Amino acid sequence: MTRAELVNQIVSKKSFLCVGLDPDLSKIPHHLLQSEDPIFEFNKAIIDATKDFAVAYKPNTAFYECYGAKGWESLAKTIAYIPSECFVIADAKRGDIGNTSNYYAKTFFETIICDAITVAPYMGEDSVMPFLGYENKWVVLLALTSNKGALDFQMISSKDGGKLYENVIQTSLKWGNPDNLMYVVGATRAEEIAHVRSLAPESFFLVPGVGAQGGSLKEVAKFGWGKDCALLVNSSRGIIYASNDADFSIKAREESQKIQQEMEQILVTKGMI
Amino acid sequence: MTRAELVNQIVSKKSFLCVGLDPDLSKIPHHLLQSEDPIFEFNKAIIDATKDFAVAYKPNTAFYECYGAKGWESLAKTIAYIPSECFVIADAKRGDIGNTSNYYAKTFFETIICDAITVAPYMGEDSVMPFLGYENKWVVLLALTSNKGALDFQMISSKDGGKLYENVIQTSLKWGNPDNLMYVVGATRAEEIAHVRSLAPESFFLVPGVGAQGGSLKEVAKFGWGKDCALLVNSSRGIIYASNDADFSIKAREESQKIQQEMEQILVTKGMI
Repeated sequence: MTRAELVNQIVSKKSFLCVGLDPDLSKIPHHLLQSEDPIFEFNKAIIDATKDFAVAYKPNTAFYECYGAKGWESLAKTIAYIPSECFVIADAKRGDIGNTSNYYAKTFFETIICDAITVAPYMGEDSVMPFLGYENKWVVLLALTSNKGALDFQMISSKDGGKLYENVIQTSLKWGNPDNLMYVVGATRAEEIAHVRSLAPESFFLVPGVGAQGGSLKEVAKFGWGKDCALLVNSSRGIIYASNDADFSIKAREESQKIQQEMEQILVTKGMI
Repeated sequence: MTRAELVNQIVSKKSFLCVGLDPDLSKIPHHLLQSEDPIFEFNKAIIDATKDFAVAYKPNTAFYECYGAKGWESLAKTIAYIPSECFVIADAKRGDIGNTSNYYAKTFFETIICDAITVAPYMGEDSVMPFLGYENKWVVLLALTSNKGALDFQMISSKDGGKLYENVIQTSLKWGNPDNLMYVVGATRAEEIAHVRSLAPESFFLVPGVGAQGGSLKEVAKFGWGKDCALLVNSSRGIIYASNDADFSIKAREESQKIQQEMEQILVTKGMI
Protein backbone atom coordinates (compact mmCIF):
# COMPACT_ATOMS: atom_id res chain seq x y z
CA MET A 1 0.00 0.00 0.00
CA THR A 2 1.28 3.49 -0.81
CA ARG A 3 1.39 6.32 1.67
CA ALA A 4 -1.24 8.20 -0.35
CA GLU A 5 -3.60 5.22 -0.15
CA LEU A 6 -3.10 4.98 3.59
CA VAL A 7 -3.72 8.71 4.08
CA ASN A 8 -6.82 8.53 1.85
CA GLN A 9 -8.17 5.80 4.05
CA ILE A 10 -7.56 7.84 7.19
CA VAL A 11 -9.54 10.66 5.63
CA SER A 12 -12.38 8.49 4.36
CA LYS A 13 -12.80 6.43 7.56
CA LYS A 14 -12.08 9.48 9.75
CA SER A 15 -9.87 7.25 11.81
CA PHE A 16 -6.24 6.33 12.39
CA LEU A 17 -7.07 3.28 14.46
CA CYS A 18 -5.08 0.06 14.19
CA VAL A 19 -6.65 -3.01 15.79
CA GLY A 20 -4.21 -5.49 17.29
CA LEU A 21 -5.25 -9.07 16.57
CA ASP A 22 -3.69 -10.91 19.50
CA PRO A 23 -6.02 -13.86 20.05
CA ASP A 24 -5.65 -16.20 22.99
CA LEU A 25 -7.67 -19.41 23.30
CA SER A 26 -7.92 -18.91 27.06
CA LYS A 27 -9.59 -15.52 26.59
CA ILE A 28 -11.87 -15.84 23.59
CA PRO A 29 -15.56 -16.63 24.12
CA HIS A 30 -16.21 -20.27 24.95
CA HIS A 31 -18.74 -20.89 22.18
CA LEU A 32 -16.03 -20.31 19.55
CA LEU A 33 -13.88 -23.13 20.91
CA GLN A 34 -16.20 -25.65 19.23
CA SER A 35 -15.30 -24.44 15.75
CA GLU A 36 -12.55 -25.98 13.64
CA ASP A 37 -10.35 -22.87 13.80
CA PRO A 38 -11.40 -20.79 16.84
CA ILE A 39 -8.58 -18.28 16.36
CA PHE A 40 -9.69 -17.48 12.84
CA GLU A 41 -13.39 -17.40 13.76
CA PHE A 42 -12.62 -14.98 16.56
CA ASN A 43 -10.52 -12.72 14.30
CA LYS A 44 -13.14 -12.87 11.53
CA ALA A 45 -15.82 -11.65 13.90
CA ILE A 46 -13.54 -8.91 15.25
CA ILE A 47 -12.61 -7.76 11.73
CA ASP A 48 -16.26 -7.73 10.61
CA ALA A 49 -17.19 -5.74 13.71
CA THR A 50 -14.39 -3.15 13.50
CA LYS A 51 -13.61 -2.70 9.81
CA ASP A 52 -15.75 0.45 9.50
CA PHE A 53 -13.62 2.14 12.15
CA ALA A 54 -10.13 0.70 11.66
CA VAL A 55 -7.65 1.63 8.94
CA ALA A 56 -5.12 -1.00 9.95
CA TYR A 57 -4.87 -4.44 11.56
CA LYS A 58 -1.86 -5.73 13.40
CA PRO A 59 -1.68 -9.45 14.16
CA ASN A 60 1.20 -10.20 16.53
CA THR A 61 2.87 -13.44 15.40
CA ALA A 62 3.54 -14.64 18.96
CA PHE A 63 -0.17 -15.33 19.49
CA TYR A 64 -0.27 -17.62 16.43
CA GLU A 65 3.12 -19.31 16.61
CA CYS A 66 2.35 -20.61 20.08
CA TYR A 67 -0.10 -23.00 18.37
CA GLY A 68 2.57 -24.18 15.89
CA ALA A 69 1.74 -24.86 12.23
CA LYS A 70 -1.98 -24.67 12.98
CA GLY A 71 -1.47 -21.19 14.39
CA TRP A 72 0.35 -20.15 11.22
CA GLU A 73 -2.62 -21.36 9.21
CA SER A 74 -4.92 -19.22 11.34
CA LEU A 75 -2.57 -16.27 10.78
CA ALA A 76 -2.55 -16.75 7.01
CA LYS A 77 -6.35 -17.06 6.90
CA THR A 78 -6.75 -13.98 9.08
CA ILE A 79 -4.48 -11.85 6.89
CA ALA A 80 -6.26 -13.02 3.75
CA TYR A 81 -9.60 -12.10 5.32
CA ILE A 82 -8.68 -8.49 6.17
CA PRO A 83 -10.38 -6.13 3.68
CA SER A 84 -8.00 -5.00 0.95
CA GLU A 85 -8.35 -1.31 1.80
CA CYS A 86 -6.91 -1.91 5.26
CA PHE A 87 -3.21 -1.69 6.07
CA VAL A 88 -1.87 -4.98 7.45
CA ILE A 89 1.08 -4.97 9.82
CA ALA A 90 2.73 -8.24 10.81
CA ASP A 91 3.89 -7.47 14.33
CA ALA A 92 6.76 -9.91 14.16
CA LYS A 93 9.75 -7.90 15.44
CA ARG A 94 12.10 -9.83 13.18
CA GLY A 95 15.63 -8.95 12.13
CA ASP A 96 18.65 -11.09 11.25
CA ILE A 97 21.78 -10.95 9.09
CA GLY A 98 20.99 -9.77 5.56
CA ASN A 99 20.80 -13.19 3.93
CA THR A 100 18.36 -14.39 6.60
CA SER A 101 16.25 -11.21 6.70
CA ASN A 102 15.63 -11.85 2.99
CA TYR A 103 13.71 -14.96 4.00
CA TYR A 104 11.71 -13.08 6.61
CA ALA A 105 10.83 -10.49 3.97
CA LYS A 106 9.65 -13.31 1.70
CA THR A 107 7.60 -14.73 4.56
CA PHE A 108 5.65 -11.58 5.31
CA PHE A 109 5.52 -9.95 1.88
CA GLU A 110 5.17 -12.99 -0.43
CA THR A 111 3.93 -16.02 1.54
CA ILE A 112 1.46 -14.21 3.78
CA ILE A 113 0.82 -10.89 2.10
CA CYS A 114 1.16 -8.05 4.60
CA ASP A 115 1.80 -4.36 3.92
CA ALA A 116 4.29 -3.95 6.71
CA ILE A 117 6.35 -5.79 9.29
CA THR A 118 7.77 -4.61 12.60
CA VAL A 119 11.56 -5.00 12.67
CA ALA A 120 14.03 -4.86 15.59
CA PRO A 121 17.01 -2.60 14.83
CA TYR A 122 19.71 -4.18 17.00
CA MET A 123 21.53 -5.89 14.10
CA GLY A 124 21.72 -2.74 11.98
CA GLU A 125 21.44 -1.83 8.33
CA ASP A 126 21.80 -5.16 6.53
CA SER A 127 19.19 -6.71 8.83
CA VAL A 128 16.63 -4.06 7.81
CA MET A 129 17.38 -3.39 4.14
CA PRO A 130 15.90 -6.62 2.71
CA PHE A 131 12.46 -5.52 3.95
CA LEU A 132 12.85 -2.15 2.21
CA GLY A 133 13.48 -3.75 -1.17
CA TYR A 134 9.77 -4.36 -1.85
CA GLU A 135 7.68 -1.78 -3.67
CA ASN A 136 4.83 -0.34 -1.57
CA LYS A 137 5.80 -2.43 1.43
CA TRP A 138 6.84 -0.98 4.76
CA VAL A 139 9.18 -1.50 7.66
CA VAL A 140 7.92 -0.45 11.07
CA LEU A 141 11.17 -0.12 13.00
CA LEU A 142 11.24 -0.37 16.80
CA ALA A 143 12.40 2.99 18.11
CA LEU A 144 10.95 3.82 21.54
CA THR A 145 8.78 1.01 22.79
CA SER A 146 6.00 1.21 25.37
CA ASN A 147 7.27 -1.33 27.90
CA LYS A 148 9.28 -0.89 31.07
CA GLY A 149 12.31 -2.55 29.46
CA ALA A 150 12.51 0.35 26.98
CA LEU A 151 14.51 2.13 29.70
CA ASP A 152 17.25 -0.53 29.73
CA PHE A 153 18.93 0.18 26.40
CA GLN A 154 16.81 2.51 24.24
CA MET A 155 17.36 5.43 26.62
CA ILE A 156 21.14 5.04 26.96
CA SER A 157 22.86 8.29 25.97
CA SER A 158 25.80 7.94 23.64
CA LYS A 159 29.15 9.63 24.06
CA ASP A 160 28.47 11.78 20.99
CA GLY A 161 25.02 12.81 22.19
CA GLY A 162 21.68 11.24 21.51
CA LYS A 163 19.94 8.30 23.09
CA LEU A 164 20.00 4.92 21.41
CA TYR A 165 16.44 5.30 20.07
CA GLU A 166 17.39 8.68 18.60
CA ASN A 167 20.39 7.08 16.94
CA VAL A 168 18.13 4.36 15.56
CA ILE A 169 15.80 6.94 14.03
CA GLN A 170 18.50 9.22 12.65
CA THR A 171 20.53 6.40 11.16
CA SER A 172 17.56 4.54 9.70
CA LEU A 173 16.21 7.69 8.01
CA LYS A 174 19.12 7.16 5.59
CA TRP A 175 17.97 3.60 4.84
CA GLY A 176 14.36 4.38 4.01
CA ASN A 177 11.99 7.29 3.67
CA PRO A 178 8.51 8.33 4.85
CA ASP A 179 7.03 6.23 2.05
CA ASN A 180 8.42 2.92 3.26
CA LEU A 181 9.60 3.34 6.86
CA MET A 182 7.55 3.92 10.00
CA TYR A 183 8.56 3.80 13.65
CA VAL A 184 7.14 2.18 16.76
CA VAL A 185 6.82 4.96 19.32
CA GLY A 186 5.24 4.02 22.62
CA ALA A 187 2.38 6.10 23.98
CA THR A 188 3.37 5.62 27.58
CA ARG A 189 5.91 8.44 27.20
CA ALA A 190 3.87 11.26 25.69
CA GLU A 191 6.49 13.91 26.31
CA GLU A 192 9.01 11.83 24.37
CA ILE A 193 6.67 11.53 21.38
CA ALA A 194 7.03 15.25 20.67
CA HIS A 195 10.76 14.85 20.61
CA VAL A 196 10.61 11.81 18.32
CA ARG A 197 8.32 13.79 16.04
CA SER A 198 10.91 16.54 15.75
CA LEU A 199 13.42 13.93 14.57
CA ALA A 200 11.10 12.46 11.92
CA PRO A 201 8.45 15.06 10.99
CA GLU A 202 6.99 13.11 8.07
CA SER A 203 7.30 9.51 9.18
CA PHE A 204 4.30 7.52 10.31
CA PHE A 205 4.45 6.38 13.92
CA LEU A 206 2.79 3.17 15.02
CA VAL A 207 1.77 3.92 18.58
CA PRO A 208 1.01 0.96 20.82
CA GLY A 209 0.18 1.34 24.45
CA VAL A 210 -3.10 3.24 24.17
CA GLY A 211 -5.69 1.49 26.32
CA ALA A 212 -4.49 -1.54 28.26
CA GLN A 213 -0.92 -0.16 28.43
CA GLY A 214 -2.15 3.20 29.73
CA GLY A 215 -1.50 5.82 27.07
CA SER A 216 -3.93 8.63 26.20
CA LEU A 217 -5.11 9.22 22.65
CA LYS A 218 -5.39 12.98 23.11
CA GLU A 219 -1.82 13.22 24.34
CA VAL A 220 -0.55 11.09 21.46
CA ALA A 221 -2.28 13.37 18.93
CA LYS A 222 -1.11 16.48 20.74
CA PHE A 223 2.54 15.47 20.86
CA GLY A 224 2.82 13.07 17.94
CA TRP A 225 0.92 14.70 15.08
CA GLY A 226 2.93 14.79 11.83
CA LYS A 227 2.51 15.52 8.14
CA ASP A 228 -0.81 14.01 6.94
CA CYS A 229 -1.54 12.82 10.50
CA ALA A 230 1.25 10.24 10.27
CA LEU A 231 -0.12 8.32 13.22
CA LEU A 232 -1.49 4.83 13.53
CA VAL A 233 -2.68 4.27 17.05
CA ASN A 234 -3.07 0.68 18.10
CA SER A 235 -5.47 -0.88 20.53
CA SER A 236 -5.51 -4.62 21.07
CA ARG A 237 -6.93 -5.91 24.33
CA GLY A 238 -9.19 -2.89 24.88
CA ILE A 239 -11.11 -3.80 21.73
CA ILE A 240 -10.81 -7.54 21.20
CA TYR A 241 -11.49 -8.39 24.82
CA ALA A 242 -14.02 -5.62 25.48
CA SER A 243 -16.25 -8.58 26.36
CA ASN A 244 -15.44 -12.26 26.80
CA ASP A 245 -19.02 -13.34 26.27
CA ALA A 246 -21.22 -13.98 23.25
CA ASP A 247 -21.55 -10.22 22.73
CA PHE A 248 -17.77 -9.81 22.21
CA SER A 249 -18.08 -8.56 18.63
CA ILE A 250 -20.81 -6.05 19.53
CA LYS A 251 -18.65 -4.70 22.34
CA ALA A 252 -15.59 -4.65 20.05
CA ARG A 253 -17.57 -2.64 17.51
CA GLU A 254 -18.71 -0.20 20.20
CA GLU A 255 -15.22 0.19 21.57
CA SER A 256 -13.62 0.75 18.17
CA GLN A 257 -16.35 3.22 17.21
CA LYS A 258 -15.74 5.13 20.43
CA ILE A 259 -12.06 5.48 19.58
CA GLN A 260 -12.87 6.37 15.95
CA GLN A 261 -15.17 9.16 17.12
CA GLU A 262 -12.44 10.56 19.33
CA MET A 263 -10.07 10.35 16.35
CA GLU A 264 -12.62 12.08 14.11
CA GLN A 265 -12.68 15.00 16.53
CA ILE A 266 -8.91 15.19 16.41
CA LEU A 267 -8.83 15.01 12.59
CA VAL A 268 -11.41 17.82 12.41
CA THR A 269 -9.46 19.96 14.86
CA LYS A 270 -6.28 19.41 12.86
CA GLY A 271 -8.05 20.31 9.61
CA MET A 272 -7.47 16.91 8.02
CA ILE A 273 -11.18 16.40 7.32
CA MET B 1 19.21 -29.34 29.12
CA THR B 2 21.47 -28.42 32.03
CA ARG B 3 24.88 -26.86 31.64
CA ALA B 4 26.49 -30.03 33.06
CA GLU B 5 24.75 -32.16 30.42
CA LEU B 6 25.91 -29.82 27.66
CA VAL B 7 29.49 -29.85 28.94
CA ASN B 8 29.41 -33.66 29.26
CA GLN B 9 28.37 -33.88 25.65
CA ILE B 10 31.22 -31.61 24.55
CA VAL B 11 33.62 -33.92 26.37
CA SER B 12 32.12 -37.15 25.05
CA LYS B 13 31.80 -36.02 21.41
CA LYS B 14 35.09 -34.08 21.60
CA SER B 15 33.32 -31.27 19.83
CA PHE B 16 31.64 -27.94 20.41
CA LEU B 17 30.11 -27.81 16.94
CA CYS B 18 26.63 -26.46 16.33
CA VAL B 19 25.14 -27.20 12.91
CA GLY B 20 22.88 -24.50 11.51
CA LEU B 21 19.83 -26.01 9.82
CA ASP B 22 18.96 -23.29 7.29
CA PRO B 23 17.37 -25.22 4.42
CA ASP B 24 16.45 -23.54 1.14
CA LEU B 25 14.45 -25.34 -1.54
CA SER B 26 16.49 -23.61 -4.24
CA LYS B 27 19.72 -25.03 -2.85
CA ILE B 28 18.93 -28.54 -1.66
CA PRO B 29 19.62 -31.50 -3.99
CA HIS B 30 17.03 -31.87 -6.72
CA HIS B 31 16.14 -35.49 -5.99
CA LEU B 32 14.73 -34.46 -2.59
CA LEU B 33 12.19 -32.12 -4.17
CA GLN B 34 10.06 -35.13 -5.12
CA SER B 35 9.43 -36.06 -1.50
CA GLU B 36 6.40 -34.89 0.44
CA ASP B 37 8.44 -32.71 2.80
CA PRO B 38 11.77 -31.91 1.11
CA ILE B 39 12.87 -29.56 3.91
CA PHE B 40 12.45 -32.28 6.54
CA GLU B 41 14.03 -34.97 4.35
CA PHE B 42 17.03 -32.71 3.79
CA ASN B 43 17.39 -31.93 7.51
CA LYS B 44 16.93 -35.58 8.44
CA ALA B 45 19.80 -36.59 6.17
CA ILE B 46 21.98 -33.74 7.49
CA ILE B 47 21.24 -34.67 11.11
CA ASP B 48 21.97 -38.36 10.49
CA ALA B 49 25.22 -37.43 8.77
CA THR B 50 26.49 -34.99 11.38
CA LYS B 51 25.13 -36.18 14.74
CA ASP B 52 28.36 -37.95 15.68
CA PHE B 53 30.22 -34.67 15.43
CA ALA B 54 27.73 -32.02 16.50
CA VAL B 55 26.64 -31.23 20.05
CA ALA B 56 24.00 -28.72 18.97
CA TYR B 57 21.63 -27.91 16.13
CA LYS B 58 20.33 -24.48 15.31
CA PRO B 59 17.40 -24.20 12.91
CA ASN B 60 16.84 -20.56 11.91
CA THR B 61 13.08 -19.94 11.81
CA ALA B 62 13.30 -17.62 8.76
CA PHE B 63 14.07 -20.57 6.52
CA TYR B 64 10.90 -22.36 7.63
CA GLU B 65 8.45 -19.49 8.01
CA CYS B 66 9.00 -18.46 4.40
CA TYR B 67 7.00 -21.59 3.49
CA GLY B 68 4.17 -20.65 5.84
CA ALA B 69 2.35 -23.27 7.93
CA LYS B 70 3.96 -26.08 5.94
CA GLY B 71 7.36 -24.68 6.86
CA TRP B 72 6.39 -24.66 10.52
CA GLU B 73 5.45 -28.33 10.21
CA SER B 74 8.88 -29.06 8.74
CA LEU B 75 10.45 -27.13 11.62
CA ALA B 76 8.47 -29.07 14.24
CA LYS B 77 9.34 -32.42 12.63
CA THR B 78 13.01 -31.41 12.38
CA ILE B 79 13.23 -30.45 16.03
CA ALA B 80 11.50 -33.66 17.10
CA TYR B 81 13.99 -35.65 15.00
CA ILE B 82 17.14 -34.17 16.57
CA PRO B 83 18.67 -36.76 18.95
CA SER B 84 17.78 -36.03 22.57
CA GLU B 85 21.42 -35.67 23.68
CA CYS B 86 21.86 -32.69 21.35
CA PHE B 87 21.22 -29.10 22.37
CA VAL B 88 18.56 -27.48 20.18
CA ILE B 89 18.62 -23.74 19.61
CA ALA B 90 15.70 -22.04 17.87
CA ASP B 91 17.45 -19.20 16.07
CA ALA B 92 14.38 -16.99 16.14
CA LYS B 93 15.71 -13.64 17.41
CA ARG B 94 12.39 -12.91 19.12
CA GLY B 95 11.62 -10.35 21.79
CA ASP B 96 8.50 -8.33 22.60
CA ILE B 97 6.76 -6.75 25.60
CA GLY B 98 6.57 -9.15 28.53
CA ASN B 99 3.03 -10.39 27.95
CA THR B 100 3.85 -11.20 24.32
CA SER B 101 7.27 -12.72 25.00
CA ASN B 102 5.41 -15.19 27.23
CA TYR B 103 3.73 -16.55 24.09
CA TYR B 104 7.05 -16.81 22.25
CA ALA B 105 8.46 -18.72 25.21
CA LYS B 106 5.48 -21.08 25.02
CA THR B 107 6.06 -21.47 21.29
CA PHE B 108 9.67 -22.56 21.52
CA PHE B 109 9.72 -24.32 24.90
CA GLU B 110 6.28 -25.98 24.96
CA THR B 111 4.86 -26.26 21.42
CA ILE B 112 8.10 -27.12 19.63
CA ILE B 113 10.45 -28.28 22.32
CA CYS B 114 13.81 -26.53 22.03
CA ASP B 115 16.51 -26.10 24.68
CA ALA B 116 17.22 -22.49 23.79
CA ILE B 117 16.05 -19.54 21.75
CA THR B 118 17.99 -16.56 20.43
CA VAL B 119 16.52 -13.30 21.73
CA ALA B 120 17.05 -9.68 20.60
CA PRO B 121 17.77 -7.36 23.55
CA TYR B 122 16.44 -4.03 22.21
CA MET B 123 13.23 -4.07 24.29
CA GLY B 124 15.02 -4.79 27.56
CA GLU B 125 14.36 -6.82 30.68
CA ASP B 126 10.66 -7.65 30.48
CA SER B 127 11.11 -8.84 26.88
CA VAL B 128 13.74 -11.35 27.97
CA MET B 129 12.58 -12.55 31.39
CA PRO B 130 9.68 -14.77 30.21
CA PHE B 131 12.19 -17.02 28.44
CA LEU B 132 14.27 -17.33 31.62
CA GLY B 133 11.32 -18.63 33.63
CA TYR B 134 11.68 -22.20 32.31
CA GLU B 135 13.80 -24.75 34.14
CA ASN B 136 16.76 -26.01 32.12
CA LYS B 137 15.90 -23.80 29.17
CA TRP B 138 18.19 -21.11 27.83
CA VAL B 139 18.19 -17.65 26.34
CA VAL B 140 20.88 -16.93 23.77
CA LEU B 141 20.95 -13.15 23.80
CA LEU B 142 22.26 -11.16 20.83
CA ALA B 143 25.32 -9.26 22.02
CA LEU B 144 27.90 -8.70 19.26
CA THR B 145 26.67 -10.12 15.97
CA SER B 146 28.76 -11.16 12.99
CA ASN B 147 27.21 -8.95 10.31
CA LYS B 148 28.30 -5.58 8.97
CA GLY B 149 25.26 -3.92 10.56
CA ALA B 150 26.65 -4.83 14.00
CA LEU B 151 28.67 -1.60 13.69
CA ASP B 152 25.55 0.58 13.42
CA PHE B 153 24.28 0.38 16.99
CA GLN B 154 26.05 -2.39 18.94
CA MET B 155 29.35 -0.49 18.86
CA ILE B 156 27.99 2.88 19.97
CA SER B 157 29.83 4.08 23.07
CA SER B 158 27.67 5.37 25.87
CA LYS B 159 28.24 8.56 27.79
CA ASP B 160 29.02 6.55 30.92
CA GLY B 161 31.49 4.30 29.13
CA GLY B 162 30.91 0.97 27.45
CA LYS B 163 29.58 0.11 24.05
CA LEU B 164 25.96 -0.94 23.64
CA TYR B 165 26.84 -4.64 23.38
CA GLU B 166 28.86 -4.35 26.60
CA ASN B 167 25.88 -2.74 28.28
CA VAL B 168 23.67 -5.56 27.01
CA ILE B 169 25.99 -8.16 28.53
CA GLN B 170 26.56 -6.39 31.83
CA THR B 171 22.88 -5.59 32.36
CA SER B 172 21.60 -9.01 31.29
CA LEU B 173 24.04 -10.82 33.62
CA LYS B 174 21.69 -9.60 36.36
CA TRP B 175 18.68 -11.22 34.65
CA GLY B 176 20.12 -14.69 34.18
CA ASN B 177 23.23 -16.69 34.97
CA PRO B 178 25.68 -19.00 33.19
CA ASP B 179 23.20 -21.86 33.62
CA ASN B 180 20.41 -20.26 31.58
CA LEU B 181 21.88 -17.38 29.57
CA MET B 182 24.31 -17.50 26.64
CA TYR B 183 25.39 -14.78 24.24
CA VAL B 184 25.70 -14.53 20.48
CA VAL B 185 29.23 -13.32 19.83
CA GLY B 186 30.28 -13.03 16.18
CA ALA B 187 33.50 -14.66 15.04
CA THR B 188 34.27 -11.99 12.49
CA ARG B 189 35.72 -9.81 15.24
CA ALA B 190 38.18 -12.12 16.99
CA GLU B 191 39.90 -9.37 18.95
CA GLU B 192 36.51 -8.35 20.40
CA ILE B 193 35.76 -11.90 21.53
CA ALA B 194 38.55 -11.74 24.12
CA HIS B 195 37.03 -8.59 25.49
CA VAL B 196 33.54 -10.09 25.61
CA ARG B 197 35.01 -13.08 27.42
CA SER B 198 36.44 -10.81 30.09
CA LEU B 199 32.94 -9.47 30.70
CA ALA B 200 31.31 -12.89 30.97
CA PRO B 201 33.97 -15.46 31.93
CA GLU B 202 31.58 -18.34 32.56
CA SER B 203 28.83 -17.75 30.01
CA PHE B 204 28.53 -19.89 26.92
CA PHE B 205 29.01 -18.00 23.64
CA LEU B 206 27.21 -19.08 20.51
CA VAL B 207 29.62 -18.08 17.78
CA PRO B 208 28.23 -17.79 14.27
CA GLY B 209 30.29 -16.60 11.36
CA VAL B 210 32.82 -19.44 11.19
CA GLY B 211 32.99 -20.67 7.61
CA ALA B 212 30.82 -18.82 5.07
CA GLN B 213 30.97 -15.62 7.11
CA GLY B 214 34.78 -15.75 7.32
CA GLY B 215 35.71 -16.43 10.95
CA SER B 216 38.53 -18.74 12.06
CA LEU B 217 37.95 -21.53 14.57
CA LYS B 218 41.47 -21.27 16.01
CA GLU B 219 41.06 -17.56 16.68
CA VAL B 220 37.67 -18.11 18.28
CA ALA B 221 39.11 -20.73 20.64
CA LYS B 222 42.19 -18.58 21.35
CA PHE B 223 40.21 -15.47 22.24
CA GLY B 224 36.87 -16.87 23.35
CA TRP B 225 37.69 -19.86 25.56
CA GLY B 226 35.80 -19.78 28.87
CA LYS B 227 35.06 -21.98 31.89
CA ASP B 228 34.33 -25.55 30.67
CA CYS B 229 34.96 -24.43 27.08
CA ALA B 230 31.79 -22.31 27.09
CA LEU B 231 31.78 -22.13 23.29
CA LEU B 232 29.34 -23.40 20.73
CA VAL B 233 30.69 -22.65 17.27
CA ASN B 234 28.15 -22.71 14.51
CA SER B 235 28.54 -23.62 10.88
CA SER B 236 25.54 -23.61 8.55
CA ARG B 237 26.21 -23.25 4.84
CA GLY B 238 29.75 -24.70 5.04
CA ILE B 239 28.26 -28.02 6.18
CA ILE B 240 24.74 -28.29 4.81
CA TYR B 241 25.70 -27.08 1.33
CA ALA B 242 29.15 -28.73 1.21
CA SER B 243 27.67 -30.39 -1.89
CA ASN B 244 24.43 -29.71 -3.76
CA ASP B 245 24.38 -33.16 -5.35
CA ALA B 246 23.29 -36.61 -4.30
CA ASP B 247 26.42 -36.88 -2.13
CA PHE B 248 25.36 -33.91 0.04
CA SER B 249 25.07 -35.90 3.24
CA ILE B 250 28.43 -37.62 2.72
CA LYS B 251 30.08 -34.24 2.17
CA ALA B 252 28.23 -32.77 5.17
CA ARG B 253 29.56 -35.63 7.31
CA GLU B 254 33.11 -35.08 6.04
CA GLU B 255 32.91 -31.35 6.63
CA SER B 256 31.49 -31.68 10.16
CA GLN B 257 34.07 -34.34 11.01
CA LYS B 258 36.86 -32.05 9.80
CA ILE B 259 35.64 -29.31 12.14
CA GLN B 260 35.18 -31.80 15.00
CA GLN B 261 38.77 -32.98 14.58
CA GLU B 262 40.04 -29.43 14.76
CA MET B 263 37.90 -28.93 17.87
CA GLU B 264 39.26 -32.15 19.42
CA GLN B 265 42.79 -30.76 19.05
CA ILE B 266 41.73 -27.58 20.78
CA LEU B 267 39.99 -29.47 23.60
CA VAL B 268 43.13 -31.58 24.13
CA THR B 269 45.37 -28.50 24.16
CA LYS B 270 43.09 -26.85 26.69
CA GLY B 271 43.09 -29.96 28.89
CA MET B 272 39.32 -30.51 28.60
CA ILE B 273 39.74 -34.10 27.36
